[in-house]
Amino acid sequence: MMNFKQLLLHVNARPFIDQARFGIEREGQRVDLAGNLAKTDHPAIFGDRSYHPYIQTDFSETQTEMITPVTDSIPELFQYLAAVYDVTARSIPKEEMIWPLSMPPALPEKDEEIIIAKLKNFEDVLYRRYLAKEYGKRKQMVSGIHFNFEFGDELLRTLFSHQEEFQDFSEFKTELYLKTARNFMRYRWMITYLFGASPMSEKNYFINESHPQEPVRSIRNSALGYTNHPNVKVSYASMKQYLADIERMIEEGKLSEEKEFYTPLRFRGGKKVADLATTGVRYIELRNIDLNPYARLGINPEQVRFLQLFLMYMLWTEEKEDSDQWVAEGTTRNNKVALEQPSHQTEFHQEGREILEGMKQMLAELDWLDSLYLVEEALTQMDHPEQTLAAKLYQEAQLSSQQEVAVALGHQYYKESHERPYQLAGFREMELSTQIFMFDAIQKGVQVKVLDESDQFLRLQFQDHVEYVKNANMTSKDSYIVPLIMENKTVTKKVLKEAGFRVPGGAEFSSMEEAVKAYPRFADQAFVIKPKSTNYGLGITIFKEGADLEDYQAGLAIAFREDSSVLVEEFMPGTEYRFFVIGGEVQAIMLRVPANVIGDGIRTVKELVEEKNSDPLRGTNHRAPLELIQLGELEQLMLKEQGLTIESVPQANQIVYLRENSNISTGGDSIDMTDEFSEAYKKIAVSAVEALGAKISGIDLIIPDKEIDPTTDKKAYGIIEANFNPAMHMHVYPFAGKGRRLTMNVLKLLYPEIF
Amino acid sequence: MMNFKQLLLHVNARPFIDQARFGIEREGQRVDLAGNLAKTDHPAIFGDRSYHPYIQTDFSETQTEMITPVTDSIPELFQYLAAVYDVTARSIPKEEMIWPLSMPPALPEKDEEIIIAKLKNFEDVLYRRYLAKEYGKRKQMVSGIHFNFEFGDELLRTLFSHQEEFQDFSEFKTELYLKTARNFMRYRWMITYLFGASPMSEKNYFINESHPQEPVRSIRNSALGYTNHPNVKVSYASMKQYLADIERMIEEGKLSEEKEFYTPLRFRGGKKVADLATTGVRYIELRNIDLNPYARLGINPEQVRFLQLFLMYMLWTEEKEDSDQWVAEGTTRNNKVALEQPSHQTEFHQEGREILEGMKQMLAELDWLDSLYLVEEALTQMDHPEQTLAAKLYQEAQLSSQQEVAVALGHQYYKESHERPYQLAGFREMELSTQIFMFDAIQKGVQVKVLDESDQFLRLQFQDHVEYVKNANMTSKDSYIVPLIMENKTVTKKVLKEAGFRVPGGAEFSSMEEAVKAYPRFADQAFVIKPKSTNYGLGITIFKEGADLEDYQAGLAIAFREDSSVLVEEFMPGTEYRFFVIGGEVQAIMLRVPANVIGDGIRTVKELVEEKNSDPLRGTNHRAPLELIQLGELEQLMLKEQGLTIESVPQANQIVYLRENSNISTGGDSIDMTDEFSEAYKKIAVSAVEALGAKISGIDLIIPDKEIDPTTDKKAYGIIEANFNPAMHMHVYPFAGKGRRLTMNVLKLLYPEIF
Repeated sequence: MMNFKQLLLHVNARPFIDQARFGIEREGQRVDLAGNLAKTDHPAIFGDRSYHPYIQTDFSETQTEMITPVTDSIPELFQYLAAVYDVTARSIPKEEMIWPLSMPPALPEKDEEIIIAKLKNFEDVLYRRYLAKEYGKRKQMVSGIHFNFEFGDELLRTLFSHQEEFQDFSEFKTELYLKTARNFMRYRWMITYLFGASPMSEKNYFINESHPQEPVRSIRNSALGYTNHPNVKVSYASMKQYLADIERMIEEGKLSEEKEFYTPLRFRGGKKVADLATTGVRYIELRNIDLNPYARLGINPEQVRFLQLFLMYMLWTEEKEDSDQWVAEGTTRNNKVALEQPSHQTEFHQEGREILEGMKQMLAELDWLDSLYLVEEALTQMDHPEQTLAAKLYQEAQLSSQQEVAVALGHQYYKESHERPYQLAGFREMELSTQIFMFDAIQKGVQVKVLDESDQFLRLQFQDHVEYVKNANMTSKDSYIVPLIMENKTVTKKVLKEAGFRVPGGAEFSSMEEAVKAYPRFADQAFVIKPKSTNYGLGITIFKEGADLEDYQAGLAIAFREDSSVLVEEFMPGTEYRFFVIGGEVQAIMLRVPANVIGDGIRTVKELVEEKNSDPLRGTNHRAPLELIQLGELEQLMLKEQGLTIESVPQANQIVYLRENSNISTGGDSIDMTDEFSEAYKKIAVSAVEALGAKISGIDLIIPDKEIDPTTDKKAYGIIEANFNPAMHMHVYPFAGKGRRLTMNVLKLLYPEIF
Repeated sequence: MMNFKQLLLHVNARPFIDQARFGIEREGQRVDLAGNLAKTDHPAIFGDRSYHPYIQTDFSETQTEMITPVTDSIPELFQYLAAVYDVTARSIPKEEMIWPLSMPPALPEKDEEIIIAKLKNFEDVLYRRYLAKEYGKRKQMVSGIHFNFEFGDELLRTLFSHQEEFQDFSEFKTELYLKTARNFMRYRWMITYLFGASPMSEKNYFINESHPQEPVRSIRNSALGYTNHPNVKVSYASMKQYLADIERMIEEGKLSEEKEFYTPLRFRGGKKVADLATTGVRYIELRNIDLNPYARLGINPEQVRFLQLFLMYMLWTEEKEDSDQWVAEGTTRNNKVALEQPSHQTEFHQEGREILEGMKQMLAELDWLDSLYLVEEALTQMDHPEQTLAAKLYQEAQLSSQQEVAVALGHQYYKESHERPYQLAGFREMELSTQIFMFDAIQKGVQVKVLDESDQFLRLQFQDHVEYVKNANMTSKDSYIVPLIMENKTVTKKVLKEAGFRVPGGAEFSSMEEAVKAYPRFADQAFVIKPKSTNYGLGITIFKEGADLEDYQAGLAIAFREDSSVLVEEFMPGTEYRFFVIGGEVQAIMLRVPANVIGDGIRTVKELVEEKNSDPLRGTNHRAPLELIQLGELEQLMLKEQGLTIESVPQANQIVYLRENSNISTGGDSIDMTDEFSEAYKKIAVSAVEALGAKISGIDLIIPDKEIDPTTDKKAYGIIEANFNPAMHMHVYPFAGKGRRLTMNVLKLLYPEIF
């Protein structure tokens, strides 16, 4: 027999010891906010279930399945799980939530009201009909965690390189996973003990059949749960035996097909079980983990780390009996533990302590001490069964009912998912536009991989179609030269002017003398003097009604202090609007208004600001679509100029501005105006963006009066600038007006095939 | 009569008074370096003459015509004229140059050896055959400057707005140009006096016909030059009369078609002369300017400014006689002046002084004093005829011959055009790659406009096909996301790795503890420790043979001083090569070698460096493809480590390195290796660039031994990085090996239709 423990102890394995890959499938029933099974279909917004990589349905139409990609670390695993959960929770009808327990909520009395998942593939439907007939629909309604685990490739290769028994790496891996599996089957009662969390069933789960009279640790993992009939027997002695047994079960009609083999641990390799003979085992799938009611996602990172340590120990510790006997004993013990009263000490307390002490020993020998505390916690639970999940849930349920506890937890998780709809759990460190974009991609079943979190760099894939996206708005659809044109204001103006658009006229001067000579050109019109290198920054003077020579010279002097080149430009009066163009259409128009409050004749400015700031859309540091209004020096100065202080009480409907500038970052309001503009203006924005060669751009127009027809009045608009990295989140979640899902428009531009 | 002088004096016109648009067509005979008329065809490298906007042929196949676009300023005019001249001078055969005189070089005795321009359009050929018959081929061989001039639009509009006689702007303009033209026709003898520069003919120009016995001011502008027959008479009294006369001349067979009307001043409006009736005059074309032998370009900026002032004065000063008489008198005077002995005082000295004094008066009244000196200079020449161009040329010719003077000037201009072939005259402030790229565009007849000189931003146009280009390598052919991928080294590595390319393996660490734990992974291999944020900058330690734990920790400490994230990466030994991929093909491969000299056993290091630095390919501040080798502190230190000083005499063939780094910017050598690599390596570079989605990229490969087959040995190469803004000039003009015209490849990528 291979001595895997010796291999694991090899010094060369040390750097890779915690290396592993993880994946989770988490099931959950959709229920209404009172906890009744949902009557609606799986939402159409998720698109086609035949390919969705993240959001599926399991047995019934109400049973969503949330799937993470395979990840290289536990934090990454939970990023995706949180994100997929968030997308699911916010995409299902507003009146629905995800049931937090493994045991389903009260089920309808009539079997026909439990709806089998409405899948496109008829064979999938047929299979579910078979299951309904063979096991009963109700048994299929339980939910849990499927945990996919793979030891790290470098770890396995290092172990492989220090043994001589196997010449073939994949045979070596199969042997390794077989040992892990047999020990897991033997000791899995420990997982049932620690993570079991289905102590009681709800109404109509058991109908006319034997069921526990007392609370238990895990109905789901007991013989009363969703398991194969007892005559299904498969050996773990060798891969050959394992495959032969499954084949025999099918031939004998004990299983309809291989996927009906509901073992707590499945080997995974190729597409079908039979492929394992050639591919070897690539990873294993644990299926015996109940939903943790106290974790919004149904499981938490500590549980996953414990499972990793536990599986490592299964590889480490020796097998003490012939394999079939060993596995059979495991089943016996598990079934006993599953039906124990959750707050009572388990029959196998002694063995439990031995396993956990063994794990501690292993961690010490492998110098893996940062996870030791998890084993200590398990030891505590071994001695204190009332601290296990099942016991806690049962105890709480005693105060009201399990149903009420579940509904309360459901509400809590519902609130956590909904309170900041502009954020995506798991990726909250990224920019809002990217979070919203990722939400949309996950919802539509486009695979998302974060290539660089701080750089907002994503890789998207749908079938064979790969796209890279940065900041949710920089894509392959725009050409390299487009942002370079937009970055250079002079070039932008030249290109737009040549294409016939109205841009501020003016001239560039490199000396005071030259500029003064040109004075008569500007004297009687509205104009702006600004340094060439900064736009709307330092050194700018605006003359709205022209200027006398002295003021003109003073303005020039200010500008020349900032740059050796100075622009004197036509001043365009009017209101600035941001037109957001994607793929040849104006998808949003936004007006930005300086930070302000509206009086009610009762409250002070300070109180009005506090109230306005309580909007969950407002936050700090760009973590929300709007920023909190400050009451700092600048705001107080602004109040003072209006004869007010923060303690003043403005009259009803009096608008009090707290800032001159309209930036959202200083508390300004974003107001969607998309439907307020005529097609003529939208056409101008679209054509200008087209003239610049862009597919995605936020272009800023100055418009004196949006009721004027720009096709007849040439001065109806002026183009100030075009942005190649325009923020999108403020359009999706504006302060007032309708939200515009620009991120979805970008996704559609990239993947027209799924819309 | 309109009082244009009063209008010009209006204060509102002042800021626009010097506003004008300019264009030049400069003719020039191709000759060999001995001054014999070229026997070659117009070079095929210029592509098709049917559309070339810059380089054409006039009457004969040897007579190139260099055409500037219309420009808004004199400096811009000369940028383009210099550039087009440079392109022409360097694109014709190396053994040819541009003849610097208006009068052609010695002509062949036989008429049939003067080859009519081989144009595609048969009508154009027919017309030239007609001219040859009507005027004789020899007469057609003179060259000159055609000067297109337009008063500034804002100037004209301001003048227009302060008069009431004309309601129609275009009629107003026609009237204005008519007055300008009549006075110009009357006083044009002044231009012949000042700028005339064809005092003598060369052999076989006059055959059996009357010709001057003495040197003159301008054969070309005399009645003996290339003019219509005296019976061609056209009135300048009104546009109607002008058009009617031309039509009558054609009807009467005195002109074959309108373009045969060889007036010194042509009105230009629409495509045909007759269009002037509807379009009005848009600009005027002066045709009476001889080539200035002392200006490489045939004319200099001061001459153009003088012409502008002169034309302004023609508009300003009053007409003193009936128009036909006025114009006829002008012709008489011009013809007299043209045939005067150049060093003699002119018959119209008095009138000349009056005109020039009048111009001075005008400049004073218009407050346009910065150009006054040009009028003063003309006054000096009026009093000192020996200072005029014709007189100077004649005087010089007396010392040898006019032929020898012309050849010597031709050689001088040849040298100026050829000594720094990597620069483009007129645009020497721009980056070298852009200069070379503009050269290619001009050569191929793609219109180039500089949108922003300091930003290297160009607009190209060929027929309706517009492209924008920055840095000569950033184009619409690459997508926006491509440079963003390349900019982020982590993302680049991930994309390349996923596509199956070999990139340095490694890991990122954010704490010393974490990194130390991974020590065994790296202990025995070659690796690099570097801060995440800088590549090849500070904080890098290379361990070529692995490292013990202590050195490993020391390396980490150095890196963590620079950044909170540290990369430990596989070190790839080998030589770094830059593969330049354009449009799916490797167009160049370059090796960069640190600054060095090769000993000869005689000279000191210092002397060897001096000699190497004398290569015109070496310069400073990126104005040349290679930089001068310095002998500063670092170089002397490097010598010291080799036991040398700058006064040491290295042995013959001893290579002495003066730098460790191979950057071209510190004196390194660029060596083209394109033909040294097998297709297999080129395919790797092409596929990697394709995987990154790029059309233009310089990708750096580490290759231990280029003789190893990379299709069999997976470690034959490693990709270090891909560059989205790779310099091109060093490939076009390498230190050693064949130059690769990458700029032309980019042009071809953008405009496949012209290749």
